[in-house]
Amino acid sequence: MTDKQPLYLGIDGGGTKCKARIETADGKFVGEGLAGPANVVRGIATTIEAIELAAKKALQQAGLEDSVMSKLHAGLGLAGMNVASYGDKMSSWQHPFKTMAITTDMHIACLGAHGGSDGAVIIAGTGFCAGASINNQYFEVGGHGLMLGDGGSGARLGLMAVRKVLEVLDGVADKGALADAILEYLRCRDANAVLEKTINEKPAFFAGLAPLVFKYADQDEPAAVEIINSVAGYIDLFARRLLKETPPRLSLIGGIASPITPWLAPDVSVQLSAPLNEPEVGAIYFSRQSVTT
Amino acid sequence: MTDKQPLYLGIDGGGTKCKARIETADGKFVGEGLAGPANVVRGIATTIEAIELAAKKALQQAGLEDSVMSKLHAGLGLAGMNVASYGDKMSSWQHPFKTMAITTDMHIACLGAHGGSDGAVIIAGTGFCAGASINNQYFEVGGHGLMLGDGGSGARLGLMAVRKVLEVLDGVADKGALADAILEYLRCRDANAVLEKTINEKPAFFAGLAPLVFKYADQDEPAAVEIINSVAGYIDLFARRLLKETPPRLSLIGGIASPITPWLAPDVSVQLSAPLNEPEVGAIYFSRQSVTT
Repeated sequence: MTDKQPLYLGIDGGGTKCKARIETADGKFVGEGLAGPANVVRGIATTIEAIELAAKKALQQAGLEDSVMSKLHAGLGLAGMNVASYGDKMSSWQHPFKTMAITTDMHIACLGAHGGSDGAVIIAGTGFCAGASINNQYFEVGGHGLMLGDGGSGARLGLMAVRKVLEVLDGVADKGALADAILEYLRCRDANAVLEKTINEKPAFFAGLAPLVFKYADQDEPAAVEIINSVAGYIDLFARRLLKETPPRLSLIGGIASPITPWLAPDVSVQLSAPLNEPEVGAIYFSRQSVTT
Repeated sequence: MTDKQPLYLGIDGGGTKCKARIETADGKFVGEGLAGPANVVRGIATTIEAIELAAKKALQQAGLEDSVMSKLHAGLGLAGMNVASYGDKMSSWQHPFKTMAITTDMHIACLGAHGGSDGAVIIAGTGFCAGASINNQYFEVGGHGLMLGDGGSGARLGLMAVRKVLEVLDGVADKGALADAILEYLRCRDANAVLEKTINEKPAFFAGLAPLVFKYADQDEPAAVEIINSVAGYIDLFARRLLKETPPRLSLIGGIASPITPWLAPDVSVQLSAPLNEPEVGAIYFSRQSVTT
């Protein structure tokens, strides 16, 4: 097989896992593999290890030798590539593939969502980001992490809920069912306990509170509705920003995409199209485009 | 002097410095001294060193021997004392004074602002906190740091300005004079540069942007006005919360107290009284109260 036609490797590297997928030139599935985190900002060496392991597993699944690695055209979409200093280091990797092309995890998610064609995508998961590929020009807006941005993320949603709880305990916001539920979830009774439990937590912890906020918003609990509306409004802003570029399609993906959709403005939600493929498939599209251009 | 009547030492320990003040029993100034940070959360040993050094300097200024330390009634107001695990450690200090009483930096600020009598205080500086001493019962609300609260702080004000700049660069907020001025201040042109410059910064960095925001708000720049109104509204909430307890006086102190006052709601600003004394004087009041009770 490998002698007759090239093989394409797609890598989707993120903060929690690295997924590899191998396809033939005519798009037939060959194998897939999974490994640990591959966010370049968290460590170049770890990222490289995860990519190699996921690729080997995909080869193994297909019954291929490790040596076939050197015949793969690799397309890598990695979290953190937008941070220039880390991106440069990663790009200088003396890789074991036949060819390698690297971009951001957002870019391959966008390519995957639209079958390799033009389109725009908003990721509303633990974090937040928006991007679009129009006439082969790809750009990203938003994101910036929980402190400086990410207003449309699950983490922001959970953080706003914890802030609301503290305001209730401080006597500057009305008590309500959401605050009671969050206190029960955290197993806390007073502000100091909430503070000690949450102050050093990472975005994923706050994103874990999102389902509770959606549950109470669906029951019209005022604080939950206020929080969801704020996050939905932020997603609306970025959706309209992307729609200005008249992309053929716009997809909303990520962990809170489905529950937040009913809360978006009608002019936005009417424009949403379901994503066509996973990001690792998008990474393969990216590899194909990079090899032929 | 020390043989005839007791001496009182007041310590105001914060994140940037530790101030000591010594007075006689009848309130006459004896000496004062300054040393480095004394926030118990940042380190108990450093805090103890700073307290001892500031106290020694105050004794030296008065021409007194270090040995007089053992005759001082010390009142300590220290940042971080509200965090139980650190507060307990600090309280078990085998101190060199005749007596020692410890409380939070907020508590002594409150006692200082109201001449040792009942009253309420809001600190709007780099951080934010509110507290009141009513019928010898002291309590605090708000604060919780930049991520979980501090909506009425200089740091929040600067953080909102940086977020606004990123939204402008992302094309989801209108350009304006404030965003231009912040970009010039940061010497940045694009979102990635702003991100790299600010993402690891501490609250004091963001509080440093506050004067710019006030400057443009005074010129009716819309983004600056929106930010100042948000921070002022948060202070209003906590002021009304404290006023419910009918304190005899309410003072607003800290770095942004003066410029934010014209932006507060009239029902709040009409209730504000100027602080009477500095926090280290409040620490001496606290020591006197602790010795006599």
